[in-house]
Amino acid sequence: MSAPPVMRELDITLDRNSPVPLYHQLAQAIEQAISSGVLAPGDRLENELSLTSRLGLSRPTARQAIQELVKKGLLVRKRGVGTQVVRSQFRRDERLSSLNEDLAQAGRRPATRLLEMSVGDLDGDVREAIDAAEVTEREFTRIRRLRLADDVPLAILTNYLPAHLALDEADLQRRGLYACLRALGINLKIAHQRISARLMTEEEAELLDVETPAACLTVDRIAYDDVGQFVEFGRHVYHAAHYSIQSSLVV
Amino acid sequence: MSAPPVMRELDITLDRNSPVPLYHQLAQAIEQAISSGVLAPGDRLENELSLTSRLGLSRPTARQAIQELVKKGLLVRKRGVGTQVVRSQFRRDERLSSLNEDLAQAGRRPATRLLEMSVGDLDGDVREAIDAAEVTEREFTRIRRLRLADDVPLAILTNYLPAHLALDEADLQRRGLYACLRALGINLKIAHQRISARLMTEEEAELLDVETPAACLTVDRIAYDDVGQFVEFGRHVYHAAHYSIQSSLVV
Repeated sequence: MSAPPVMRELDITLDRNSPVPLYHQLAQAIEQAISSGVLAPGDRLENELSLTSRLGLSRPTARQAIQELVKKGLLVRKRGVGTQVVRSQFRRDERLSSLNEDLAQAGRRPATRLLEMSVGDLDGDVREAIDAAEVTEREFTRIRRLRLADDVPLAILTNYLPAHLALDEADLQRRGLYACLRALGINLKIAHQRISARLMTEEEAELLDVETPAACLTVDRIAYDDVGQFVEFGRHVYHAAHYSIQSSLVV
Repeated sequence: MSAPPVMRELDITLDRNSPVPLYHQLAQAIEQAISSGVLAPGDRLENELSLTSRLGLSRPTARQAIQELVKKGLLVRKRGVGTQVVRSQFRRDERLSSLNEDLAQAGRRPATRLLEMSVGDLDGDVREAIDAAEVTEREFTRIRRLRLADDVPLAILTNYLPAHLALDEADLQRRGLYACLRALGINLKIAHQRISARLMTEEEAELLDVETPAACLTVDRIAYDDVGQFVEFGRHVYHAAHYSIQSSLVV
């Protein structure tokens, strides 16, 4: 059996002059630590006794805060271990695949909200990335979608595709982009991608239903079809608390 | 030591009759200066006070503009220096390689500060990850290092290795872990890794010389040698403004 997971002492400040009840302030602070990733899935929460003595709270207050988060499905009380952050990260294998299909395959229920679809100029740094790839296309359709898994917002997907492709709005709400492309006879063959991270903007945090500050994982990807033709440039933002990329490396 | 970075007074014109909020106009002007090269990577931005008095803006307006660009990953707040244009990210190929050697190969000057080296119990979630990999080892050496590139802190590397390995402290400051392992006759063959992101803790931000909130890219990696023996579990935290992982994916 595995040993008990880490117990972190959170940096919590309570405002005793606030009209917000202390238990709710505490719950919010713990929730913020989870959504921002300071507390990771599987991490053990500091126990009630420690919380109460450290923060000068009554036992029922601490219990009520924890209970609130257990109810929200963020914490789970495990026998003999204590309270743990639920493990909910979607671990996605790193390959040239569709998030929609990967979610479905993992037993999660994917959904898409089309935020924007327009033909227009490229932002400077997207232009740069596309130019660097020696794409000759001049006009692009910009598609921005919110992808959810089991009703929880997971990612904001922004894609730039040649404007001549006949993509359908309704179709893009119903299935993934790669499935839409396949229906147009386009099969992706190779992609080059770059993974990094940054803080979410306020707008992104709102879409992803998280309090700022929050971290996101970013993936830029340029993809080509089986005859070497440029198909799309994607700039994706993933809710880092809910998403990770896994891969195997061999020398 | 590197010279203090330049502070440029940008030529900025704001339109007070525009429906575009002033903070956003300012952010766009700075972004334009970056993308056009007027502000180069590493350049220091004029400080808030100077911006506000020169442009007749309120302090919160200037702050909001800068914050927007920090979130977009274009500016970085450096402790004791001020706000700087981010230097181009170190783009590292995703493979089972040594960060030290990858940096050197890219013409960057790597350096290591050994923060900790001790034999002891594993943190709960590390224990879990190692148990999940069915590692039979019971005692581990924990090594924590700060890795710099051209004197700029880039990553905090924490590794767990079988305690019986005769690793040398001086050696670990001089070269990368994988080179130290090779000297012990250990050759890495395969690794499984997981990439995600989160907010830096205060301690991490201090080590990585950045103001909080800041995002980090995280990589957990478990590696085996050419006879299938467990070699190390690594939990690495990268300064996201300075680091990205690139790879190619083929169907």
